[in-house]
Amino acid sequence: MMPSERTSYSLREIVKRYGGEIAGDPEVRVRQVATLEGATPDTIAFLANDRYLSQLKATCAGAVIVSESARAATRLPRIVCANPYAYFARVSALFNPGREPRPGVHAAAVIDPSAAIARDAEIGPFVVIGRSVRIGGGSMIGAGCCLGDGVGVGSGVRLFSNVTVYHDCMIGDRVILHSGVVIGADGFGIAMDEGRWLKVPQIGRVVIGNDVEIGANTTVDRGALDDTVIEEGVKLDNQIQIAHNVRIGAHTAIAAFVGIAGSAKIGRGCRIGGASRIAGHLTIADHVEISTCTLITKSIAKPGTYTGAYPFEPNSEWRKNAAQLRHLNELAERVRTLEKKPAQPKRSKP
Amino acid sequence: MMPSERTSYSLREIVKRYGGEIAGDPEVRVRQVATLEGATPDTIAFLANDRYLSQLKATCAGAVIVSESARAATRLPRIVCANPYAYFARVSALFNPGREPRPGVHAAAVIDPSAAIARDAEIGPFVVIGRSVRIGGGSMIGAGCCLGDGVGVGSGVRLFSNVTVYHDCMIGDRVILHSGVVIGADGFGIAMDEGRWLKVPQIGRVVIGNDVEIGANTTVDRGALDDTVIEEGVKLDNQIQIAHNVRIGAHTAIAAFVGIAGSAKIGRGCRIGGASRIAGHLTIADHVEISTCTLITKSIAKPGTYTGAYPFEPNSEWRKNAAQLRHLNELAERVRTLEKKPAQPKRSKP
Amino acid sequence: MMPSERTSYSLREIVKRYGGEIAGDPEVRVRQVATLEGATPDTIAFLANDRYLSQLKATCAGAVIVSESARAATRLPRIVCANPYAYFARVSALFNPGREPRPGVHAAAVIDPSAAIARDAEIGPFVVIGRSVRIGGGSMIGAGCCLGDGVGVGSGVRLFSNVTVYHDCMIGDRVILHSGVVIGADGFGIAMDEGRWLKVPQIGRVVIGNDVEIGANTTVDRGALDDTVIEEGVKLDNQIQIAHNVRIGAHTAIAAFVGIAGSAKIGRGCRIGGASRIAGHLTIADHVEISTCTLITKSIAKPGTYTGAYPFEPNSEWRKNAAQLRHLNELAERVRTLEKKPAQPKRSKP
Repeated sequence: MMPSERTSYSLREIVKRYGGEIAGDPEVRVRQVATLEGATPDTIAFLANDRYLSQLKATCAGAVIVSESARAATRLPRIVCANPYAYFARVSALFNPGREPRPGVHAAAVIDPSAAIARDAEIGPFVVIGRSVRIGGGSMIGAGCCLGDGVGVGSGVRLFSNVTVYHDCMIGDRVILHSGVVIGADGFGIAMDEGRWLKVPQIGRVVIGNDVEIGANTTVDRGALDDTVIEEGVKLDNQIQIAHNVRIGAHTAIAAFVGIAGSAKIGRGCRIGGASRIAGHLTIADHVEISTCTLITKSIAKPGTYTGAYPFEPNSEWRKNAAQLRHLNELAERVRTLEKKPAQPKRSKP
Repeated sequence: MMPSERTSYSLREIVKRYGGEIAGDPEVRVRQVATLEGATPDTIAFLANDRYLSQLKATCAGAVIVSESARAATRLPRIVCANPYAYFARVSALFNPGREPRPGVHAAAVIDPSAAIARDAEIGPFVVIGRSVRIGGGSMIGAGCCLGDGVGVGSGVRLFSNVTVYHDCMIGDRVILHSGVVIGADGFGIAMDEGRWLKVPQIGRVVIGNDVEIGANTTVDRGALDDTVIEEGVKLDNQIQIAHNVRIGAHTAIAAFVGIAGSAKIGRGCRIGGASRIAGHLTIADHVEISTCTLITKSIAKPGTYTGAYPFEPNSEWRKNAAQLRHLNELAERVRTLEKKPAQPKRSKP
Repeated sequence: MMPSERTSYSLREIVKRYGGEIAGDPEVRVRQVATLEGATPDTIAFLANDRYLSQLKATCAGAVIVSESARAATRLPRIVCANPYAYFARVSALFNPGREPRPGVHAAAVIDPSAAIARDAEIGPFVVIGRSVRIGGGSMIGAGCCLGDGVGVGSGVRLFSNVTVYHDCMIGDRVILHSGVVIGADGFGIAMDEGRWLKVPQIGRVVIGNDVEIGANTTVDRGALDDTVIEEGVKLDNQIQIAHNVRIGAHTAIAAFVGIAGSAKIGRGCRIGGASRIAGHLTIADHVEISTCTLITKSIAKPGTYTGAYPFEPNSEWRKNAAQLRHLNELAERVRTLEKKPAQPKRSKP
């Protein structure tokens, strides 16, 4: 849809909904959100970081959302508020409300007769729904999704195309699962027995709380015996792997490619950078931040930021430094030896 | 199914099937397996690691599986055996036998008339099966799977939903492929030609041996000219990438996110930790263990454990240490210089 | 197809198509390409790297493709050319032309009536095509693919099975998307608001240029406000994650598991090794090479090779060295202290 076809809102109308204070003309109308750089006069942009102050000065936006500290940094009509990025998220949702469900089950879906599907849910083509599945009101199940026997789906849920949910897994309200997500595949449970691996049946479930969003091609394995649990409000990016019996605390956000090994317990409100790895059976406290590409091998009991990535450099430098890294312990011992060298003796009088 | 609906077995019946020795009442009946912590009196738990001895003392399990060394650590009815985890795997499989195939081809599957499908195989809805595909007895092909022309599938195989197998790939008996697995996509073969990449046709296959299990969203590329081979009994976790012309030796187990680059040869009985990477054209000996997050850049000729992960620390510490890492070679040279300083000269007599 | 059923070509015919010079019998006929090791007398192999000279001497190939420098290294009939690997790619494409589209829409596809599909395109079973989708001539859409409303697909495109393209994304000509690829899922845009994450609507698109190939299970997120752009000729391997608003310059090649965080700009003609990570909002110059497993945390302005991977070693060595790494800054200070020790004082005359 082009901006011109959209409903417009005045700053006054926006502030009435979401609070904040207007500086400048409250009757300015906008039709869409934009970046400072890409904005046009019928859009509203935002400044959440002073790094972009020069872009604020140059923007063609019709209005902007700023914090108190940037109130005087522009003459554009503006909404002043405590958290411009969150405010912007709300305004963007106003202009871009997302698709409404089209209630009904597509003729080309295969639904077990024992399934209980809310009347106003939308079931797309080529969906397969197993025995005793329950799907709540207003949920949308995209084309090609497969829900195994006994799966429970809350209300207001959106599964994009080609999502798989294995049997007996539970999905809360307003959960979003992007394409390619696999919930409830068997955990990696194998027992060595005389040179061969025996499969250990994985009989737990995955239980996903309300308001969780899971990115494309992420996998969450079912528990071995007890359940794997993703608490409410957790946000998972793409291509994450959550192993069996992991528990992720409420409102934790995890970036792409993170791997969390079996039975790890992650606290609430944590932020885990992309491609980090958390070893099995660890406990991570609430509000811990883990930097990108960091391997966590021990439990973390205190909030704070933890890091462990090799710094990059030109390859020729790296070759020299990485080679020495293999001799670091030896180097430390040589320094110890130097330190033990007898101090310069006091010169005795001649 | 609730435990109460399940068939129960006495310890005597279990030992008759799987061996081991009973200590305590052999007539105790159990209906399901459980963790020591989550167990109820109608379940059997296990102790495979002395770390959990305190859980053994507190468990509510009706019976436990223990090793000889832990025989006296509990008064509960118990099965004493050499390998409690493997024993537990067998008992769990007894209680949780997995779904039986429901023979037949779903009406909403598209099967090429030249395909040969065993009568007792189960083909789910929205499955697509190409020309000359063969599917063996008792195999289950889940909803939405696509098998290209010429694919061969053994007997007792299970493909969960939304698995893709490209043309001509071969899958052995009792193989399990989880949802989102892609077998036989083109390897990353490109040739630079005057500033543009030419695609190199990938004309090999993927050949998967018996008893292999492959986790959700793992990809195994077809060979460039010869085949990519996964030997019997290999276990691959989720989101692994196996490049073209790799060979993985029998009974090797590989954890999530491992990437194995083109033409690498991995030995038998190896264990490769999560998120490790093996560079192309290397050879890894049998029974090598590679720790999590380790990049292997040279062939490994001897069994043993190999590691190369940056240790994590609080970010403020990491900043200082990582900054020095970029000067490590220089530091080593400075130590060399210190070591060459003339030794304290013998004082000549005045 | 067995080699014997294939069309054969003489070296003279091949050189007429692709240039190069024949040494030896120009009438030798070959039917397929092969590796030096696996070749038979009716195949043609190639030598692109002097490392494999011993294989050249032992090969059973009927003919070989070599560079000028290896002209005299064999007596086999041979094609001498500037770039044997690119030449081989062309010859392989001659023998292995890929499947032709079978024009038409499968009866078991669900196509919105407003979609415009070229007559000679092939739409497979269980495909879902949304409103106003356009699909160009000769394109093949594999089984189970889902194309959202407003998607544009060029001509000569191939989508393998189970690919998802979200609404409004644009795909150029001759693009190849392998199974499990997800184009245009929401970027990871979340705003913290009083302990909860608010979703930031992702209203940009993904725009993919001509001649791009994307490997199995790779994900490319739609832009938050502006678009995510993959320029022409880019080659992406499997299981790569491209975040919102990334731009990848033309003819850049990226190996498996690479993650590129939001708004990063990658130059043209770059080569990025497997499992590397590029942090958000960075700019990487044209023709930069990044080694495997390297985390790039700052913009790179100059071509060159950049590296940052921890070297692997036997675990016992690693333990010692990694432990010291946590004290590296302290070690550097101790060396500084040693260096400051007063130089051996000049002995004063007695």
